[in-house]
Amino acid sequence: MIDPWSSAIIDYKKLRKQFGIKPFADLLADINNPLPLMSRGVVFGQRDYGRIVKAMREGNEFAVVTGMMPSGKMHIGHKMVVDQLIWYQEKGAEIYIPIADMESYAARGVDFETSRKLAITEYITNYIALGLDFADKNFHIYLQSENKVVQDLAYKLSKKVNLSELKAIYGFSNSTNLAHVYVPLIQVADILHPQLEEFGGPKPIVVPVGPDQDPHIRLTRDIAERFKSAYNFIPPSATYHRFITGLTGDKMSSSKPKTAIFLSDSPEVAVKKIKTAKTGGKETLEEQKESGGNPEECVVYEMLLYHLTPDDEKLKEAYNDCVEGKIMCGECKQNTADMVGKFFENLSFKREKAKDIAKNILNQD
Amino acid sequence: MIDPWSSAIIDYKKLRKQFGIKPFADLLADINNPLPLMSRGVVFGQRDYGRIVKAMREGNEFAVVTGMMPSGKMHIGHKMVVDQLIWYQEKGAEIYIPIADMESYAARGVDFETSRKLAITEYITNYIALGLDFADKNFHIYLQSENKVVQDLAYKLSKKVNLSELKAIYGFSNSTNLAHVYVPLIQVADILHPQLEEFGGPKPIVVPVGPDQDPHIRLTRDIAERFKSAYNFIPPSATYHRFITGLTGDKMSSSKPKTAIFLSDSPEVAVKKIKTAKTGGKETLEEQKESGGNPEECVVYEMLLYHLTPDDEKLKEAYNDCVEGKIMCGECKQNTADMVGKFFENLSFKREKAKDIAKNILNQD
Repeated sequence: MIDPWSSAIIDYKKLRKQFGIKPFADLLADINNPLPLMSRGVVFGQRDYGRIVKAMREGNEFAVVTGMMPSGKMHIGHKMVVDQLIWYQEKGAEIYIPIADMESYAARGVDFETSRKLAITEYITNYIALGLDFADKNFHIYLQSENKVVQDLAYKLSKKVNLSELKAIYGFSNSTNLAHVYVPLIQVADILHPQLEEFGGPKPIVVPVGPDQDPHIRLTRDIAERFKSAYNFIPPSATYHRFITGLTGDKMSSSKPKTAIFLSDSPEVAVKKIKTAKTGGKETLEEQKESGGNPEECVVYEMLLYHLTPDDEKLKEAYNDCVEGKIMCGECKQNTADMVGKFFENLSFKREKAKDIAKNILNQD
Repeated sequence: MIDPWSSAIIDYKKLRKQFGIKPFADLLADINNPLPLMSRGVVFGQRDYGRIVKAMREGNEFAVVTGMMPSGKMHIGHKMVVDQLIWYQEKGAEIYIPIADMESYAARGVDFETSRKLAITEYITNYIALGLDFADKNFHIYLQSENKVVQDLAYKLSKKVNLSELKAIYGFSNSTNLAHVYVPLIQVADILHPQLEEFGGPKPIVVPVGPDQDPHIRLTRDIAERFKSAYNFIPPSATYHRFITGLTGDKMSSSKPKTAIFLSDSPEVAVKKIKTAKTGGKETLEEQKESGGNPEECVVYEMLLYHLTPDDEKLKEAYNDCVEGKIMCGECKQNTADMVGKFFENLSFKREKAKDIAKNILNQD
């Protein structure tokens, strides 16, 4: 019902041909109860994900690593990663969440204390409210700046990476500051450190990312190979997901508030925002009744597909009603707005409860 | 009696004109009981040393930082730094000795465990045997790889240094590995961290180095200025010492065993070695009796000047006897060999006692 490989959304062919990302759909049949995000093609690509499928099927140890960059507010698009984490947690995965305060300092000049506060009040609070279990024995969260194991590993790995590579991958120049040049190695160590002996040794690891992060995944996999004899690393797997479209039709971004519904928005504000969203409607009602709307280009439909309508049959119905001209944008928006209102009422209730728990998360150990 | 600014030994004029290093002699009169190494011009240059002189005179807090690079064996030339440390310790200085295991890994591929062992069995053992007081309350020694305060500071400081600067100072190219590019910032943090609030806040710091280390001193001073508003750093002072000449007349170096008397040499070996040293003698005995020897170009005389003859009158006598042709190289070498024998007998006795103490130094906190 959706063409996940639509070149309108992502230049999939380039990703596959030039960089070797494989379709996620190839492995879908082997996955027990895949997430709607997976079966619907939002998670569209993968590298070496067969290793993760096998680990899940055979009940073997595996880990998921996904960073939390404490900058700005979380928007509804960020929920996608949390949904995947919750799903992996149910599959028995070890979860590792590095809070990228060292990166935030290097790239944006945010000091560690500010990052820490933002991570707690915004990110951790929302992750808890959305349902991630921080008390699980296989759950790990840490600030990069406080994790000496990760920092040590980063330094050791940095011995086999040179400036040319980093310049090519990240576009650094001679005027780039050294913290910025160095911090990718911290991220490489974030991804690889769960394979150290003290964390149970080599194991499959998956990193769910947007396709823009693939150069970083490739560097990490290369470095894993370079240190194979020292650490016996298994090169990490990755999945690639589409970005959520912003309310204006551009990419949703926290730094452009008009594009985003924030997780901290009140139900009223969220409802108001979804009503401003760009739809796939036609110029006139007549035309739309005649030839139907275009859900592939509709931010409202995307909201249903990504977040609000987990039931495939119901989603199909909404899709068909639209393309057949049975429902117009006004009514559809109102239905969606009702769902958004309920979702945000529930979330804001859970956020209140989550706040107190969040305060203590980074003080454990 | 020695011209410390002799261009034959060090291109002092260049150091002064091009880089702004000042003569150490300018401040000598203000120093109480200067080391022979100072009054004899082995310590020949300085930057901002007036600050240290003032702190010593007024009994104010100040610190000395000097790294220990655990690579190869210690030779007699390394004793010079230990002598300075002992002198500063008597002056009430805080002593900070970083063991440069991160540098050794980046530059020479030596792993941390090997560095640690070498630091204990070779460097710390000799430092103790030579008389440095590791039990003093103002004495600090640490492995770079284990010092999170230093590592954190290095990362923070690395935000205001770019690749161009590092390439210019250290000759890095795009094929230099990232660990190598990054580790100078660890050294910068080694030097500046005693000024952090948790170590008593801003204070004068002196780093005794060879003139080849001056680019690093200048970078450190620049970075101190760049972070003045954040940390209130006082730019560190430095002193510059001449290198000891090797037995062959070249620079003494642990990696060229024929040039070096090692501190771990037995008295017999040390005596044998000094007898092979290049002297400032003439072609024939007749000529030397006629016109005298040349102590400025004599490795044996340098050994007296640096290490074996603390009494200025006695040194002057040896000098005069040589230039006046009163003593020939054979007799002088035998006298020196006797002193070397005694020095190494004493040192080897103290090294035996020091070994057990050294074992526990890095396990403290």
